[in-house]
This record gives sequence, structure tokens and C-alpha cells, in this order.
Amino acid sequence: MIFGKGNFSLRLIPLGGVVGVTKNMYVYELSRQGKISDILIVDCGIGFPNQQELGVNLVLPDIDYLKDKTHLIKAILLTHGHEDHIGALPYYYTRLGKPRVITGKLTKAFLMDKFADFNYQAPVEIASLDKTYQLGNFAVEFINMTHSIPDTTHILIKTPVGNFYHGSDFKLDLTPVSGRWPDFYKITKAGHEGVLCLLSDSLGAERDGLTLSESEVGKTLDKTMAKTKGKFIMTTFSSNISRVKQCVDAAVKYNRKVVFMGRSTARNVRIAKKIGYLSLPHGFEINEKEVSKYPPSKVCLIVAGSQGQYGSAMAKLASKQNHFVKIAPGDKVVISSDPIPGNEVEVFNLIEELSLQGAEVIYTNIQDQLHASGHGNKEDLKFLARFVNPQYFVPIGGTIRHQRQYQRIITQLGYPKNKVLMLNEGDTIVFKKGQKPVMGKKIATKNIYIDITGTNSIEKGIIKERKSLAANGIVILSVAIDKEMNLLAKPKMINYGFISKKEENKISRRLETVIATIFSKKSAKLANLEI
Amino acid sequence: MIFGKGNFSLRLIPLGGVVGVTKNMYVYELSRQGKISDILIVDCGIGFPNQQELGVNLVLPDIDYLKDKTHLIKAILLTHGHEDHIGALPYYYTRLGKPRVITGKLTKAFLMDKFADFNYQAPVEIASLDKTYQLGNFAVEFINMTHSIPDTTHILIKTPVGNFYHGSDFKLDLTPVSGRWPDFYKITKAGHEGVLCLLSDSLGAERDGLTLSESEVGKTLDKTMAKTKGKFIMTTFSSNISRVKQCVDAAVKYNRKVVFMGRSTARNVRIAKKIGYLSLPHGFEINEKEVSKYPPSKVCLIVAGSQGQYGSAMAKLASKQNHFVKIAPGDKVVISSDPIPGNEVEVFNLIEELSLQGAEVIYTNIQDQLHASGHGNKEDLKFLARFVNPQYFVPIGGTIRHQRQYQRIITQLGYPKNKVLMLNEGDTIVFKKGQKPVMGKKIATKNIYIDITGTNSIEKGIIKERKSLAANGIVILSVAIDKEMNLLAKPKMINYGFISKKEENKISRRLETVIATIFSKKSAKLANLEI
Repeated sequence: MIFGKGNFSLRLIPLGGVVGVTKNMYVYELSRQGKISDILIVDCGIGFPNQQELGVNLVLPDIDYLKDKTHLIKAILLTHGHEDHIGALPYYYTRLGKPRVITGKLTKAFLMDKFADFNYQAPVEIASLDKTYQLGNFAVEFINMTHSIPDTTHILIKTPVGNFYHGSDFKLDLTPVSGRWPDFYKITKAGHEGVLCLLSDSLGAERDGLTLSESEVGKTLDKTMAKTKGKFIMTTFSSNISRVKQCVDAAVKYNRKVVFMGRSTARNVRIAKKIGYLSLPHGFEINEKEVSKYPPSKVCLIVAGSQGQYGSAMAKLASKQNHFVKIAPGDKVVISSDPIPGNEVEVFNLIEELSLQGAEVIYTNIQDQLHASGHGNKEDLKFLARFVNPQYFVPIGGTIRHQRQYQRIITQLGYPKNKVLMLNEGDTIVFKKGQKPVMGKKIATKNIYIDITGTNSIEKGIIKERKSLAANGIVILSVAIDKEMNLLAKPKMINYGFISKKEENKISRRLETVIATIFSKKSAKLANLEI
Repeated sequence: MIFGKGNFSLRLIPLGGVVGVTKNMYVYELSRQGKISDILIVDCGIGFPNQQELGVNLVLPDIDYLKDKTHLIKAILLTHGHEDHIGALPYYYTRLGKPRVITGKLTKAFLMDKFADFNYQAPVEIASLDKTYQLGNFAVEFINMTHSIPDTTHILIKTPVGNFYHGSDFKLDLTPVSGRWPDFYKITKAGHEGVLCLLSDSLGAERDGLTLSESEVGKTLDKTMAKTKGKFIMTTFSSNISRVKQCVDAAVKYNRKVVFMGRSTARNVRIAKKIGYLSLPHGFEINEKEVSKYPPSKVCLIVAGSQGQYGSAMAKLASKQNHFVKIAPGDKVVISSDPIPGNEVEVFNLIEELSLQGAEVIYTNIQDQLHASGHGNKEDLKFLARFVNPQYFVPIGGTIRHQRQYQRIITQLGYPKNKVLMLNEGDTIVFKKGQKPVMGKKIATKNIYIDITGTNSIEKGIIKERKSLAANGIVILSVAIDKEMNLLAKPKMINYGFISKKEENKISRRLETVIATIFSKKSAKLANLEI
């Protein structure tokens, strides 16, 4: 690597992802003699609205800070293909000045598909794992890592100030379905050469032990399928190509035709097949209309909607809205995921409805090794910390409480508490060679809300109005008048979510009288003025 | 490293340790053009007799195979300071031609102490962790590792045929008491450069998850001591200096004077203090005669005999044979070890006796995190396998069933079953560059038995005679005769472990008659011949 000469400092600016789990976007900003010289961006993901953010479909990070600096962006690096790490890029690619984008093979495929929705193509590069990328005054190495989606990487970012290990979402899976376990040599080599700061996934910091390997889930799916007499129905996060692959492999083993149901599953399966990450023997894939042609014991359905989302393929199956596939006694439904906090009600409703129709439902509360988190538990996090052995730690990808737990883990390893730097959104840290890092100037950030169409952004004021509407309803009065302000008809009140019909009649009559009175006075007054 | 030219082959010869857990001794034998050229020995430990091996104190490996090859021995490398890895060397050092010995600091200290018992000194070298040792046509690197004794190493042995990773007794302890966790970089670097064969500890292959860190046990000792009103009495394997250190640290924290009791504890503590691995503030160590001067709440006893061994300091305490220290209600006895299979009865007897005297006894059956094994569980073993990623695996340090379990683990990682080479004692494997390893000529080995004096070896025939004695007892007849074979006195029978006194009298009288008859005939006959 070649670094320019001069007095460098590096500012780490999380535009998202440090406390909200999702919406991951990290800016590494190098300054030379106090002037910003090079910017590197890691990830550009979407977030998800909370229940107060009414009518919001997704949330984007706020890139306003970057608007006059896009010419300094050397590249955007994407760690893996989950929405909360790549989903915002199609919205921002042009605004960011169409920078160089480098990422893994599957991530590229997912991203290109998203770009296609926006009707453009971008020259996304597939990251080489054997190469050092010189990106301005950054030298970057991608390191093979494991998570709940193939082609996940960690990134070693060498700078004139020191080396940063960007350890986003990961677990140490020794038996990943892809067969490509973490590159322990490159990780420990980074540590051996010296790392100034480790940014580490912290979402699993509350859980003891090591995280279960993805391949253990495959064994459970296989065993469960072997004992299933009727249809085998599996639902999981549809981006988990490895989980889908293991279910497909079991189906082929037990000679069951495979149906992919739901938009997101179909889309991800299409992409994975295209790049050779998923394949079925000829004739094994059928569509839902063909299900009835086969005995239930010869069918495996892989269905989107593991969170019980309204309108999802799984929810439709459960509520008998699918015209071609019906749940029947003997069928087994495997929910191979945990409910995301907040979705418990929907998931349990799904289980109720499916059970009522006679399906046996298997879910993580009653069956071990049915789902493996993509995030490292305490021991995974400790191993990474020991491998990298940095001077400072920054927990990312979790919430405040995960940051605190991560800090506990690190102090248990013997590091002083103040080596763990805990950031909030917009907080920045400045690193200078041989000096203790200091908090930098805070960056003003806000949430950028996108509606269901995926194109319109929603102002915060609008959300406030929607909250008011949601809490109070609305009353619209229509008053027909002529130019002279004479009432031409009886005023009419339209009530929407405000009061009941019975009350409406009462109030309506009173309002009419009041309005009639106002307008009679008003017209008189106006008439007077004109005279 | 510099290797000579020629057609090399390497024969791996375990003289002990592959199926019996203990008595570890591995010979790496290089041949050039079919002629043995270089020998490297790893470990030289003792084994322990089974219950059939009567009167045997310890068992040595059979080094007969090496007797005409000692001039080819380039060095003996010792992985750590446990008896079953170093204990045989003092017996064999001279017979092996006083070879170069290289090992860790604590291991050296233990070894020198043993040598002193044999009244000689040997120039043992302390292994550098930063250096490659060129030993004939071997190039050797020591790698820092964690186990239940400080200064444990793994050894990378580079040969002209390929690299061997000697991964004897270990666990991956991320928080060892010494603060020196495994050198993951050197391990993975070995893997990156290519390893032909990994010899791996397999003793923990039946246990799930990762092995508990030694420092977790320290926390338990601390918490338990905090709640103890009377004397705090701790017993563990006395070579576990880290455990002893943690107990001492807790005692100092809670202002308790420390007494080291029992020969092995006193000896190991003396050695550890000498090399700076253990220290107590001035005035904190007292001897057992002083215990009565302090209130029980101000005393901590660290006592040898965690296996309930007959005659050990712990057994004497339990059976009220210690004149200075008495167990009393309020005292807490912490047995910080698991019973070695076969010792359960002794350990439970110990617990019974101590409980009867009013002590509260804490042991691993009733309290978690009271003992941490030094041997890696399944996940530790998997990590090492992934780090090193060799072409072949040889499980060592376990029994047949541990070898089989290790093979299962390795196949779960995706390696074919036949990549795991399972050896019996005396089995050898021959490696040649670019070829599949093949079983070599078997080496004849036998157990070398050493008695309680530690110096006399015992022939196998003697053990057979002892077994017969043990099963039958003995009868000795004394017959006093003169030169002419005349009986001078009544024959006398001595019965030892043969029959009861009552039966003895009966048989004794009959025997006298028989003998008197024989001798009267005999003397007559002899007299006749002389005539």
C-alpha cells in the first residue's frame, strides 16, 4: 500500500447502524493537514419504521453530510447482501456521484436486481479476496466471513493513521453450507500486523456460548422432513440462501417436488440460481398450481413470510386465501426463524391458524436447532476480539443494550472499559496517529422516510399529521357559497374516524346552524364594506 | 529452514500416548534414501498402572527401539510440564544419549527438579516462541497454547516430506490466568503454509461446546470464599499452578493466611515461586502448625490429594490424622477437580468423611464452574482443525473411543473418514512427499514398570507372580533336616493369605504327617543307594 505524506487524521462517522441495528452506513473520512482528502463508505442499508412512523415503508440513512464531498468518495464497500446493508444504495447511487462499488458475488447479484427496479445499471465490482485495493489513501482487504447469507465479508481498512477492522454482521461458522469458513489466517494476520480499532457486530452479545452452525439447521430440516407424511412447508428469511438450499437438498433426497412461494423467495431463488448458488435436478421445481397433481408426501413448499407479515404467501396459506394449496392434516409447517422482536403476535397467529387446519407446526420455541442466528454469540465475539486484538473497540449492528453487553465481554477479556467506544447515530470519533481517539463534531442526521411505492420520501411533519389523524380522525365541512358569500346549500359535514354516526347527526345539525349564522353575518359585513 | 537433498520419508512412531492417554512419547523418524537420518522426539512421559499391575508405581514407555539410534536424535521437545509428558525423561536421559532438550519455562523448572532427584543436572533449553529451530533435517517452531498448566506449547515440525502440527494437550482458553492466550496467528499461519498432518489432543472429543476458561474457575473460588465463615480448604491437581494462583489471589483479597499442604503441592508451589509464576505478599504464607493461631475465617488451606489418594494430605485431614489442623463446622472444602475415572470411590469417601466432621463440601457434581478441564471440547477441536486444515489427522492423548469420536468430529467438518489415521501403540505411519501415507512396520513395545522406590523396574513375570500371590496367598513349609536327610524337627507351615488359622491347624497336622513319611522313605531310599 502507498499512503500520501502529511499529517493525517481519520474521522469515523456512522450515518446509521450503531444503535438501531439496521440502516448500516459507515463513513471513514481521512483528513490531511486538517482538510478532508479521502472518503470511504462501508455499507448503505435501509432501516425499518417503528410503529409510530405511520405510512412509512422503509427508512434511509441521511447522507446530507456527504452532499458537497461526493468527489472525495473513493468507493463504497458492501459487507453482505442484506437489505439493511445494501438496500439504500439504489436510492443514493446517483446522489453519491456514482462511486466505485465493490462487494461479494451474491451481494452484487442482489444489488443489480435492485438497481434494475430503478431502471439503471451500475458497474459493481466483485471483491477479490486475494487482493489489496488501493483506494486513495486507503488500502483495503476483503476477508471471507460467515453470516446468514453467503459471500459475507469483513473488511480490513488500512489508513495512514492506523488499521481498522470492519467486523460487521458475522458468526464464526466452522461448517457453513457454502463450505467456505472464515479466513482465520487473514483475520489473525490483521491482528498480528496491528489493528487500531475493531468495529464489531454486537447483536449476539447477550447470548452465551458459540452460535449454532447453519449446517446444524440443515440436519434438523432433513430429520423433520423424513418424519413428515403430508406436505412439508418451510418458511425462513428469504435471503437465507443457505437455509433454502438445505431445504431443497432434503426435498431432493426424499423425492419431493419443490415449490417456491412468495415474491421475495421467488426473487432470491432466481438470483441464487442465476449465479450458481442454488440448483435443482431437472423437473424438481413445480409451481403452486401443480401441487394438487402430486401426493402431499411428494411436495415441499418453501414459502415467504416467516414473520407472519400481512399479505405474505405464508399468511395467505394460513388464512386459506391460496386457491391452489390447502393446508391439511398430516402437513408439517416448519418456521425456521425466530420472530423479530415486535412480530411475536403475528407469528403466533400464524401458528394458531395453521394448527387449526390440522398442520403440525414446528417452531423454535418447541424445537432446538431449527434456526441459527447469523450473529455471533459471546464466544464468537470473544474469538474475534482475540484474533484482532485491537487498541480500541466500537460495537456496531446492535442497540444501546448490546453495546453495553459488548463492553462487558471486552472487559472480561482484560481490556480497560474505556477501550470500548460506544457511539450514537451522528457521533463521530477522530483518530490520530499515536494519540488517544477523541469524540469529533456531531453530524446532524435525520431519518429519511420512504413510502410503500418506494420512491416518495416523507417529511417528518407529515408523519406528525398522520399521528394526529390516527389519534383523532378528521372532520371535513363542505360549505357551498356564491361570490357574495351567500350560502347556496345546507353545509355538509363529512366525518372520517372522528365520531360515530349517531353522534354525527347531532353535531352535524348544530354545526349547520352555527355555519348558517356565521355566513349570514359575514355576508352582511362584506356587503357593508362594499357599500 | 534448510533441508538436505535426497529422497526422504518420515515415519511417525508413537511409543506411547495414542491410546492410553498418558505415557506420551512420539518419535518423528526421517529416512533419506531409505536410511534413518534424523530422529526428533516429542514428550517423554510416564503412565500409571492399572489395578492389575500390582505393586507398580508408574509405567515408562519402552525405548528399546531407539537403543541403537541415539546418535541420530536431534532433540527431545517437551510440550508441557505434566508427568505424562515429561516424567520418563529423568529415567531415560542418559540412555537416550543425553540429547538436546527444549521446552517451556515452567516445564524446564519441573524437569530440573526431577533431574535433581536423580542427582544430575541437564542443560535444558527454554524454547523461544519467536524462533525456528533447525534440528538436523527438521525445522521446529514452538507455538504458545493453553492447557491446565502454564507454558504449554504446540509444535510445528517442518520436514522435507511435509509439515506436522503436533497439537498435544490443549484447550482454546481465551482468558487464561497467565494472560497469554493461544497464538492464533502462528497456528493459522501454519495452516496457511500447509500442514501434512495434524496430531490433535482428542480427550475432550465426547463433550459438546467449548471448554470452560480457567479464569471462570477463579471467579467461582472467589465467590465461594467470600461466603465462607470458617476455614477455606481447596484441593486440586497440584501441577495446576493457575488454579493455585487464583486461590492464593482470592485468599489475599479476603485477608486469609495461606497454608500449602502436602508434598506435591509444596514442591510445585516452590518451583512456581522460584520462577516468578506465583507470589504472596510478605507474611501471607504460614505453615500448618500456625493455623491454630488464627481465626478460621482468616485461613486458606491449599491441600494436595484431590483424588482422595491414600496417605495424601487431604485424606489425612479427612481422617483426623493431621495433628495441627482439624476440620470444624463452618469450614468449607472445595474439591476443584473431577475424579479421574476409577477414583470415584476414594473421592466420595473423602466427601463423606469431611461432611461428617461438619465441613460443607463443594464439588463438581453440585457446583458448576468449579473445575475446568485442560482438554478442548468438540468446538475447541473443530477450531484447531479449521485453523490448521491439514491433509491428515492423527488423534492423540485419548483412548480408542476418543479416537473414534474425534474421527466423527472431523468427518462432520467435511473431511473424508480415511483422512483420520487412528493408531495403536507401536503402530507406525510412513509419509512420503506427494504420496498417501501408509502403515509402517509395527514396533514391538512393552510397558516398563517402576516400583514405589522410583528406581527398580519390574519384569512382567513378577507382576504375574504377584497376581497369583494376590489371588491365592502363599504357604511356606520349613523342614529342618541333617545331611543324611533325617528330619531334625517337626515340619512347620507358615500360612500367609492362604487359609484361616482354624483351617491352618488342621492342614498343618496333615502336612506334618505327610512330610514325616516322605522323609522317612527318602532317607531310607538314599541310605539304600549309598549302600
